[in-house]
Amino acid sequence: MDRRLIECVPNFSDGQDQKVIDAIANAIKTTKGVNLLGVDPGQSTNRTVYTFVGTPNAVVEGAFNAVKVALELIDMTKHKGEHPRLGAMDVCPFVPVRNSTMEDCVECARILGRRLGEELSIPIYLYGYASTLEYRKTVPQIRAGEYEGLKDKITLDDWKPNFGPARFVPKWGASMVGARKFLLAYNINMLSTKEQAHRIALDLREQGRGKGKEGKLKGVQGIGWWLKEANMAQISFNLTDQELCPLHVAFEEAKKGAEALNLSVVGSELVGLVPLSAIMAAADYYIQKESLCIFEPDQKVRLAIDRLGLSSLYPFDPKDRIIEWKVEATDPPKPLLDISVTSFVNEVRQGSPPARVCCISWSVASLTSMVGLLTYGKRQWEHLDKEMRSLILPLYSIVDEVLPLVEADTEAFESYVKACRETKNPDSEEAQKALLDAINVPLELARKLSSLWPHIEQVATLGNPNCLSDIQVGIKCLETGIWGARCNVLINCGSLADANTKVDLVKEANFLYDTAKHHASRILRTLEKDHQAEGEK
Amino acid sequence: MDRRLIECVPNFSDGQDQKVIDAIANAIKTTKGVNLLGVDPGQSTNRTVYTFVGTPNAVVEGAFNAVKVALELIDMTKHKGEHPRLGAMDVCPFVPVRNSTMEDCVECARILGRRLGEELSIPIYLYGYASTLEYRKTVPQIRAGEYEGLKDKITLDDWKPNFGPARFVPKWGASMVGARKFLLAYNINMLSTKEQAHRIALDLREQGRGKGKEGKLKGVQGIGWWLKEANMAQISFNLTDQELCPLHVAFEEAKKGAEALNLSVVGSELVGLVPLSAIMAAADYYIQKESLCIFEPDQKVRLAIDRLGLSSLYPFDPKDRIIEWKVEATDPPKPLLDISVTSFVNEVRQGSPPARVCCISWSVASLTSMVGLLTYGKRQWEHLDKEMRSLILPLYSIVDEVLPLVEADTEAFESYVKACRETKNPDSEEAQKALLDAINVPLELARKLSSLWPHIEQVATLGNPNCLSDIQVGIKCLETGIWGARCNVLINCGSLADANTKVDLVKEANFLYDTAKHHASRILRTLEKDHQAEGEK
Repeated sequence: MDRRLIECVPNFSDGQDQKVIDAIANAIKTTKGVNLLGVDPGQSTNRTVYTFVGTPNAVVEGAFNAVKVALELIDMTKHKGEHPRLGAMDVCPFVPVRNSTMEDCVECARILGRRLGEELSIPIYLYGYASTLEYRKTVPQIRAGEYEGLKDKITLDDWKPNFGPARFVPKWGASMVGARKFLLAYNINMLSTKEQAHRIALDLREQGRGKGKEGKLKGVQGIGWWLKEANMAQISFNLTDQELCPLHVAFEEAKKGAEALNLSVVGSELVGLVPLSAIMAAADYYIQKESLCIFEPDQKVRLAIDRLGLSSLYPFDPKDRIIEWKVEATDPPKPLLDISVTSFVNEVRQGSPPARVCCISWSVASLTSMVGLLTYGKRQWEHLDKEMRSLILPLYSIVDEVLPLVEADTEAFESYVKACRETKNPDSEEAQKALLDAINVPLELARKLSSLWPHIEQVATLGNPNCLSDIQVGIKCLETGIWGARCNVLINCGSLADANTKVDLVKEANFLYDTAKHHASRILRTLEKDHQAEGEK
Repeated sequence: MDRRLIECVPNFSDGQDQKVIDAIANAIKTTKGVNLLGVDPGQSTNRTVYTFVGTPNAVVEGAFNAVKVALELIDMTKHKGEHPRLGAMDVCPFVPVRNSTMEDCVECARILGRRLGEELSIPIYLYGYASTLEYRKTVPQIRAGEYEGLKDKITLDDWKPNFGPARFVPKWGASMVGARKFLLAYNINMLSTKEQAHRIALDLREQGRGKGKEGKLKGVQGIGWWLKEANMAQISFNLTDQELCPLHVAFEEAKKGAEALNLSVVGSELVGLVPLSAIMAAADYYIQKESLCIFEPDQKVRLAIDRLGLSSLYPFDPKDRIIEWKVEATDPPKPLLDISVTSFVNEVRQGSPPARVCCISWSVASLTSMVGLLTYGKRQWEHLDKEMRSLILPLYSIVDEVLPLVEADTEAFESYVKACRETKNPDSEEAQKALLDAINVPLELARKLSSLWPHIEQVATLGNPNCLSDIQVGIKCLETGIWGARCNVLINCGSLADANTKVDLVKEANFLYDTAKHHASRILRTLEKDHQAEGEK
């Protein structure tokens, strides 16, 4: 299933009539797979900003439904507001959030553009990354003249809309649909005067003090202002591109600027939502800067919050402000990993079939990573810390890759069974494809598990003796795990149609197991000796 | 008036009967000058801890009233609870908070002890700083055997109570009254395991790992534990003595301990209330460590909160957690400084007499300090920053001393007028004493103002020219201010009885003014020249 997450932030030109605001919000909320995160009406600006996330298709669908409703309810001929606007829906950007790329967003912008143009006959201008013409790339360029100037402008060749009719639609105007990067509104608190804060802002922001005196940070706008209720100054940044300038860079540069003037930074404040990646990037930066080793997401997040001082003005609640986590809180729970252990036992007992696979694999996984932890952290093994640490990381990341495979394996096996039931014969082209999946997952699993051996060897050699038994058990289980995956591959191969793939799949499975058996017994013997040797002294 | 603030934390042996809990709370609340900050009943421990602050007399009075009520309502013969206790009121410590010393607290402990002993005939043991005998200095020593063992223990010579009868009072038992330092419950958050947190705690706490392996920090107890709901470890400190180990030392040492193990600290958490001094000490430490210059209390506090990461788990609201500020929020507003400017104008217009004094002095004060600020912070005067800064501090602190003198002056003048009215003759011994006050305050004021000249001179010499006018105005006003104070001294001397003090008071006042006039004109001339010189180029 599609795990890409894209944010869409359409602005509609009505911030006063509550009914219209709710009707549009409703159209978005009831679209499947869409998660409405915020509705932000502005009385004086007379416009409302909607923020929602979902898979590419879902957000396109949501935006489309919102426009369909707005078409009935907003009449631009009667519209006034302080913020410049081009149509009933002014801008509609698509922003990448979780493992989705800019192309995905450009793709969404085009699909939505085309549908709005052809099905609802709305003039559409592509902007940002979605537009290929330099003179109409940014919003201010396209919006010049606003709605009132659209009547004659839209007939010029230069301003033929990318989609929809090239004529003036009085009740709607035109809309700008595009793709842009996630932009972060980030304020850094300073104990200084407004001018000093403003100075640092001038030194850092991209356009600096105008031509020839550019600032240090790319893709950053910033000004310094005074925050009365807290009685301190702030540098207010807009980070328009995280690759160019991530959060922590902006923060550290501001700190350097402050130290240069012997001023001090007292934390910072993020306005609105933030993607997990931005926080993680900050955490990773501090982890390797202070050479820490933290690998739990919520601890990494806590580290980032602390280092950036995100809670200095208002508490920063990760579950509420990090998009992926806000979204997950509203997802349905995962069937196998979230149920309690006893009821899991019962599941297994019902033989809901693949449960067995899973319980092998992560008993393996958990065991091995535990090994590392055991030696890590006690005082009398301190001199081994450095090596231990270098071992831990690979161990941990492998475990993280193994867990989801458990789910994947269940799904693969079920879709194979389902394919058999629908096509009524196990040899149909579909069933075979599903079967191949059901084989590759356990094989992939065995590969990952086998990549643990070298790490485990080191662990065993320099491990601490008095929880020797845990290491021995771990090794046995690893061998058993790979063995299990092998059986699983062999059996599913039993009903694989073409022979040659069957042969080399079986060969690889067996090979993986033989190396496992060989490793296990070798390490165990070495351990046995140390223990005896240990025994005598 | 008495600005000393002392905290009193009596423990009464009833945490279940709400009526008793409220009755005691009421007895404290209705004592004049006392501020009840917290009531903390414990079901299982069956005891309640009351926390209140006030002037020495007020807290003694409050404690006394609480005991009087408890005498009626608590019967120890029926008392059971999990926490060890010696009597209906177990311990009653007095703790110094704002400009009050340990002696003040010992004094309170003795006064309360005596009153409880003689007026209510309750056996009292002095403890902590208030006790002079080594074998009965700490609570565990005195409380050994608890209430049940008191019957025979109290008849031994070693355990004759400091106050009250040396016999067993069945319904009450005995009480320990003493003085101790403010103790801080301070937890440092760590991204580590419980053992590592515990290790650092062992390295730092005073008793270390028992005999011979003492920790680094004096007067500190600590353990490491795991905080499940936040999924991280904490080092939980009790800082029993801030001089020995202030907040920031505990924090920095923990950070060093963490870095040594390549772990990371993610903020900390203060439990309960904290004295301003503890926060300020931390702020001062970071100010001179990073050589900042911050002198506003609420900014210093904000700095300390940020550096110690006090808001990492829950928001730390200074007004609610810093004792002095929590207390002030409930004080009545100050008559002159807190009223709005227009209604201040009207006050002046009513000629409520000393208003004039004040408006001189702080127009002076504000002016001068403004001077410093003016040059400070703009970019093109950057090379002067260092000197500027060294100037700012003295300027600022003088201003802080000048402001309260404004109030003091008003009060001094009024008490003189009142003395005249009560004794009906201006020459009575009282009236003269009050008159002397009414003279010394403006004189003291003139002294402080005169100490500004050297600083102002430097300011003028290296000041930035384009707000020259402000400097000139400042200098004139300073001269005027001192002049005003002089007039005030002269006039009040007019009705001073003995001649010789009159003469040298007048002499000093005149001297201060002559130097002021001399300084002002000299500096103004130099400025005039620079400006001309500036003028031509």
